[in-house]
Amino acid sequence: MGNASAAGDAEAAPSPRRLIEAMARVNPVFQHLGIEIELAEAGHSRFAMIVRPDLTNTFGVGHGGVVFTLADMAFGFTCNALGERAMTASASIDYLAPAPVGRRIVADAREVARQGRNAFYDVVVSIDGDEPIAIVRGRMRILGGEVVADLADR
Amino acid sequence: MGNASAAGDAEAAPSPRRLIEAMARVNPVFQHLGIEIELAEAGHSRFAMIVRPDLTNTFGVGHGGVVFTLADMAFGFTCNALGERAMTASASIDYLAPAPVGRRIVADAREVARQGRNAFYDVVVSIDGDEPIAIVRGRMRILGGEVVADLADR
Amino acid sequence: MGNASAAGDAEAAPSPRRLIEAMARVNPVFQHLGIEIELAEAGHSRFAMIVRPDLTNTFGVGHGGVVFTLADMAFGFTCNALGERAMTASASIDYLAPAPVGRRIVADAREVARQGRNAFYDVVVSIDGDEPIAIVRGRMRILGGEVVADLADR
Amino acid sequence: MGNASAAGDAEAAPSPRRLIEAMARVNPVFQHLGIEIELAEAGHSRFAMIVRPDLTNTFGVGHGGVVFTLADMAFGFTCNALGERAMTASASIDYLAPAPVGRRIVADAREVARQGRNAFYDVVVSIDGDEPIAIVRGRMRILGGEVVADLADR
Repeated sequence: MGNASAAGDAEAAPSPRRLIEAMARVNPVFQHLGIEIELAEAGHSRFAMIVRPDLTNTFGVGHGGVVFTLADMAFGFTCNALGERAMTASASIDYLAPAPVGRRIVADAREVARQGRNAFYDVVVSIDGDEPIAIVRGRMRILGGEVVADLADR
Repeated sequence: MGNASAAGDAEAAPSPRRLIEAMARVNPVFQHLGIEIELAEAGHSRFAMIVRPDLTNTFGVGHGGVVFTLADMAFGFTCNALGERAMTASASIDYLAPAPVGRRIVADAREVARQGRNAFYDVVVSIDGDEPIAIVRGRMRILGGEVVADLADR
Repeated sequence: MGNASAAGDAEAAPSPRRLIEAMARVNPVFQHLGIEIELAEAGHSRFAMIVRPDLTNTFGVGHGGVVFTLADMAFGFTCNALGERAMTASASIDYLAPAPVGRRIVADAREVARQGRNAFYDVVVSIDGDEPIAIVRGRMRILGGEVVADLADR
Repeated sequence: MGNASAAGDAEAAPSPRRLIEAMARVNPVFQHLGIEIELAEAGHSRFAMIVRPDLTNTFGVGHGGVVFTLADMAFGFTCNALGERAMTASASIDYLAPAPVGRRIVADAREVARQGRNAFYDVVVSIDGDEPIAIVRGRMRILGGEVVADLADR
């Protein structure tokens, strides 16, 4: 059961990494995009993927929706990895450069602020950790309840 | 050739609908999401898709990245359908309600302003044209050059 | 007492217009900018002001912060005018054209969506209701409690 | 002449601090808000002001439009301080906490990305450099031409 492996000892809260791995396992979009978890710490994570030809737009470069989805996954998982269930309230993205097909793109997400039940994240998406191609600000609403409890049903 | 069918008579500019159909044909993400073109007019279009189980998030509802991608496609195609090549500069999304699996979601995009080489779009994503689940503001930068010329290479 | 004049008969909820007038009276920034209330309906209002020389920026046109403030006032008052106390959670603004000194600028604000305790507004700022100079999307968080009760303390 | 004092030796480009001081001098909104320049480096500046009673909103705390204006000034001046004339294209603000009357608020602005003629800034507004009350992302469009040349006309 995903639940059992994510929760481990019922006494200890699962680590951000174990929660992110558990969430990734049951997330079909994460799987479809072939995302790898590079870093998974409290309040900071980094995900990477290859811009495959089937993930491009009309003009043959990485689809803007795919770049956004990678970033959304990065900040959403970073928030949920703290253990409380949360959902994306809003996000904004600025595109700086195309995501070339065949290249590896990396989304680095950090929590930058908290206010009540709202948490704010900054994500930089870059080509292989180097040239930035997008900057994203994401806002999560914390609903409460445990992420692991939800995963148990999946 | 997509080019030939999109451009039709070389003398006449292709209609928004013909351009959108031509762009959709060569766009693998559009194809993967199973998007249908409901409306394609100058400055206004409407796209729809079913929230399939493989398009859900960790918690079993439509992935926020997929909802964004549908909206991005709607405003991006609406802009490019006027014939000049353009790319997304930035976008922001507010999520209002989940996208239930199995339901049909619809993105209705309208141009709301122009300023020099920038065009602004509002998109409402709803469940079947009814209950809104997200509102999106998209900003396109118009690069110039003809969309059909680019499609000829695909 | 501002409270008494705003609330009128304790049995009847004050109208949007009476609430907006009462809020405007105790708001020093509203007064400083010389804003006029053009329209005050449920979910829709319109405010206007002259771009005075003391409200310009380094380059001699209307200050972007002043244009934002007018728009913020328009959507914030529109939300509070429904009677429940609310505060701005976030906002984004796109500038389309300068606000020429000496001209009258108008902010037209409409509620576009509600989701739980969140309400969303679109504002168009134009020169005299004609040429648009900025578009704004504002998000209000509804705190509850009555606006008139707060005004009583001012 | 503001121009002469800003430009100094015609051979040397004026420093960010001298340009910011020259812009501040001719900016009536900057003067009205009583803003102080705390830091003025290339790509990074910090401005502070006191939340005076005349700068509050309907509910007696610092006006959201004033907080935005301080942040807008911080990122706009940071961009223009590099010497090329630029204007705000768009901005978004998230409010985290009220700006208490009588307190000193500080806007710290940093350039986070460049793409062609667009520059992107993050601003944190805090109470006295400590508790954050707003985060802002600003986007500047670089028009070209020298800032000092424009100031000469003011």
